[in-house]
Amino acid sequence: MQASNFYIEKVDLSKPLHCKQLLLLLNEYMEDEMGAGKPMNPGLSEEIIEGLQKYPSYIGFFIREGDEFLGLANCNSMFSTFQAAPLLNIHDFIIRKKSRKLGAGQFLLEGITGFAKQEGFCRVNLEVRYDNIKAMNLYRKTGFGECNPPMYFWEKGFNGK
Amino acid sequence: MQASNFYIEKVDLSKPLHCKQLLLLLNEYMEDEMGAGKPMNPGLSEEIIEGLQKYPSYIGFFIREGDEFLGLANCNSMFSTFQAAPLLNIHDFIIRKKSRKLGAGQFLLEGITGFAKQEGFCRVNLEVRYDNIKAMNLYRKTGFGECNPPMYFWEKGFNGK
Repeated sequence: MQASNFYIEKVDLSKPLHCKQLLLLLNEYMEDEMGAGKPMNPGLSEEIIEGLQKYPSYIGFFIREGDEFLGLANCNSMFSTFQAAPLLNIHDFIIRKKSRKLGAGQFLLEGITGFAKQEGFCRVNLEVRYDNIKAMNLYRKTGFGECNPPMYFWEKGFNGK
Repeated sequence: MQASNFYIEKVDLSKPLHCKQLLLLLNEYMEDEMGAGKPMNPGLSEEIIEGLQKYPSYIGFFIREGDEFLGLANCNSMFSTFQAAPLLNIHDFIIRKKSRKLGAGQFLLEGITGFAKQEGFCRVNLEVRYDNIKAMNLYRKTGFGECNPPMYFWEKGFNGK
């Protein structure tokens, strides 16, 4: 398999095939030890699609090879006040297990950053788990790194989440 | 001065007063040693307002006392696929220098988290500089903390940014 057969396709949530593949890939991500470690709650799939469809800032990218969907990135477009320019946040980054170690992750990430650069985004941000060494290696390889100065990513959840 | 005189007002970018105050507060934030350490490029102000107006995911909050604007939070509404619910990202968090140490930061932060909880957001996220101890203390006091598992916030900028 050669990287040159990969291609990027933007997620179009008006296409049932895209919705189905998004949910399949997201479920694999949730099951992964670096995700939630358990499969998607079956009742959630409709809410996820409806939620994403409602969000005008959502931008998604598939990495495909022929008819196959190898991976997915769910992103949000935000606005950097300091740069007065849009920035892209990668919220989920998924390569299905059987397509790993073939360069798909790097291809997808380069597709996203290429899109962002071309469309006038000032930067791409992502959060990475402190223990996800494989992901960090991939992100570094494609030019990502700590912010300058470094930033911590904090949260306050509701309802015990 | 008592905290009970503070109140929260959502930013309305159709109001010239709100646009003016947003730029004043943002400029003070940029000048701050924990911001960019230099004032806003004068040419940027129009682009910032126009950019924010274009972004449907933008939600801003002022903290006010009477006619005074004491602080500002510029936030983005995003969508958590894992929770199938919106999440709120605090992009800028500003309390003007002369209004610090009066509880304004806590009041604004509690206003934002109260809004987010009421509106069905699953969580509030923010990035904090590793060396901004005062901000961390404030965020901890209002229930923020590291994600579980902890996450690093990385970026890839374009054009040397």
